[in-house]
Amino acid sequence: MVKTIIGGVCAAKGFKASGVHAGIRKNRTKKDLALILSEKKAAAACVYTTNLVKGAPLTVTKAHVQNGYAQAVICNSGNANTCNANGVEIAEKTCSLLGEALGIPASDVVVASTGVIGQPLDITPIQNAIPALVSALSDEGSEAAAEGIMTTDTVRKEIAVEFTVGGKVCKMGGIAKGSGMIHPNMATMLVFITTDCKISPEMLQKGLSSDIENTFNMVSVDGDTSTNDMVSVLANGLAGNEEIVEEGEDFTAFMEALNTVTVFLCRKIAGDGEGATKLLECKVEGGRDLITAKTVAKSVICSSLVKAAMFGADANWGRVLCAIGYSGADVDVSKIDVSFASAKGTVEVCKNGAGVAFSEEKAKEILLEPEIDVLIYLNDGEEKSVAWGCDLTYEYVRINGDYRT
Amino acid sequence: MVKTIIGGVCAAKGFKASGVHAGIRKNRTKKDLALILSEKKAAAACVYTTNLVKGAPLTVTKAHVQNGYAQAVICNSGNANTCNANGVEIAEKTCSLLGEALGIPASDVVVASTGVIGQPLDITPIQNAIPALVSALSDEGSEAAAEGIMTTDTVRKEIAVEFTVGGKVCKMGGIAKGSGMIHPNMATMLVFITTDCKISPEMLQKGLSSDIENTFNMVSVDGDTSTNDMVSVLANGLAGNEEIVEEGEDFTAFMEALNTVTVFLCRKIAGDGEGATKLLECKVEGGRDLITAKTVAKSVICSSLVKAAMFGADANWGRVLCAIGYSGADVDVSKIDVSFASAKGTVEVCKNGAGVAFSEEKAKEILLEPEIDVLIYLNDGEEKSVAWGCDLTYEYVRINGDYRT
Repeated sequence: MVKTIIGGVCAAKGFKASGVHAGIRKNRTKKDLALILSEKKAAAACVYTTNLVKGAPLTVTKAHVQNGYAQAVICNSGNANTCNANGVEIAEKTCSLLGEALGIPASDVVVASTGVIGQPLDITPIQNAIPALVSALSDEGSEAAAEGIMTTDTVRKEIAVEFTVGGKVCKMGGIAKGSGMIHPNMATMLVFITTDCKISPEMLQKGLSSDIENTFNMVSVDGDTSTNDMVSVLANGLAGNEEIVEEGEDFTAFMEALNTVTVFLCRKIAGDGEGATKLLECKVEGGRDLITAKTVAKSVICSSLVKAAMFGADANWGRVLCAIGYSGADVDVSKIDVSFASAKGTVEVCKNGAGVAFSEEKAKEILLEPEIDVLIYLNDGEEKSVAWGCDLTYEYVRINGDYRT
Repeated sequence: MVKTIIGGVCAAKGFKASGVHAGIRKNRTKKDLALILSEKKAAAACVYTTNLVKGAPLTVTKAHVQNGYAQAVICNSGNANTCNANGVEIAEKTCSLLGEALGIPASDVVVASTGVIGQPLDITPIQNAIPALVSALSDEGSEAAAEGIMTTDTVRKEIAVEFTVGGKVCKMGGIAKGSGMIHPNMATMLVFITTDCKISPEMLQKGLSSDIENTFNMVSVDGDTSTNDMVSVLANGLAGNEEIVEEGEDFTAFMEALNTVTVFLCRKIAGDGEGATKLLECKVEGGRDLITAKTVAKSVICSSLVKAAMFGADANWGRVLCAIGYSGADVDVSKIDVSFASAKGTVEVCKNGAGVAFSEEKAKEILLEPEIDVLIYLNDGEEKSVAWGCDLTYEYVRINGDYRT
């Protein structure tokens, strides 16, 4: 049984966090540097973007967590430290400065950056801010850290849960930065998760890699896969449960908690996509296999035309069929049913691949809600999938038409 | 030598065209039905969308041109006749009514539709308009036909050229409907081309299928592959050249003319993409193979973030690198150079995968132009590719947020 609690990344025993304004961003007040610290070294697992153009921090983090352990996470917003000649050097310097300040090895630091690509990242504001960042560390620092990693996000993304493993109460929390340049192609945003559950680095990595297939890999805001995506989990073992070293009841309980955290953050990221006014959830059922169900869900959630129609609260189901048709999935169009649903009810718009009469008024009422489900029944098997996205709005264009300046 | 002339689809000998307002669209004056007629049966070649959800007219057209010949093209706008239970019946009825009016077999009619998906197409306005459509046929009817197939297009798309095959002067013309739901995945819009060059149906199909790989398949407006795309060529042979039945000098001359027509229409379609303020041309050089060059060009032209940056005249080259990185192409990022160019000059923004200092003022001046080149040098081989697209604007969102109503 997974129960939601407060505290974000500081909910689990032995984790503190902080966030400060270091001056990396032009904005004078927005926090742009975040820190998470475990009081003891923790098992660490990460997944990274599949983009060939990778942020320098990812290279450095990969090397640091190769041994399966880490103790701190530092992340700046406002600059991605990507496509810069001295990127790796700056990311390493960040880790060594933080390591010195905390009295831990630089190689136990996970480092991440998010923001504009291709502008040199100056170490000076980071160096100057580290003392304040470290002294701000607190059990109540999750909110500040969540703010520190935000870019064009409009809301903080934070959750914590409580669960039981082998009779011991464990806690897990997460923060995320989402917004634009988000696409389902292997880890798609910055997400930092902490837990006091004891689990081996191998099982932690296995659990994370498996979970993201159905969570962060099923979120799209705009079809652009970022260069700097990373999802990282630190598990410090302070809950005192017997270490999870294999599949079984304990691992299942851990995975359930992890999935609660990641699905919550997926929905938050999608619903707060750049310029979004609505969260879209595309639920596909009846796929002949899992890949078919996933391919269909992703294609619909990524369609600019479906997204624009949802912005306009227009029940333009033909665009849903169209996006299924070009998805590359092997479906029988003549079997497909489609409905739109929200808190205001459900309206069936397509049956056996063709339109059915429906009340435009009712459909409008349903689609004016802030959370919309696009329900697709392939009627061709037993497999299901869910993908998350958002509508396409004027505001997305405005934000991205002038992001650097 | 290919020379541009006037006359559109009526430039070639023996072709007449017309366009009328039949009342399929709500708009009371916009032409919504177009006809092209050859005075004799012509060799016919078509390519179709790869979307599994296919407009009913495509099914009917495919059957009609299977024997390699056709004599007339009829196309309505305002309704795609797709995902309708009686779609094929309506498309066949359209052909038989037109065939009767023209005194030709229904099976010699190419039929196409474009507009909203999933709303039944009423035959009545088409039936009522066919007499007027036929009596309006004229040598100067290309403009009216080009208008009849427009949906949210803001400009007519029309071209004609003159070329020589075996000492005989031949002519070729084309009209196109572009706008939204356009994506490079095998024929991506409605294009009708006519020529009086004599060429066998087999060589015509071969030529068309080969040409579109580097033309219509390299255009993207919004990443959505339409259900109703079709490119069709009628070649009636009235120029009197010896029939082209194999590769050689004559076929090369024909292909050069065809490519002039198709590239012109690609640029027109991309530049008039829904809501577009700019034509984007992404030119990739130095690819280790053709597929790499094409994949990179398509990925960049499809990126919502690159498109939004171009709308804002923002030299955000990091997004170009990012789109190359997630394209799936096997490139060496550290070798990549990027420049932006327009009528106002060229500015290099990235060298060896990292940023170079450039004048933001100069870049802004270049990017404020209506035609922008994104120049990508992979420096890894000899292969080249070009893709066409447009910027992403408020207007795209406005149009598509409320298209049906």
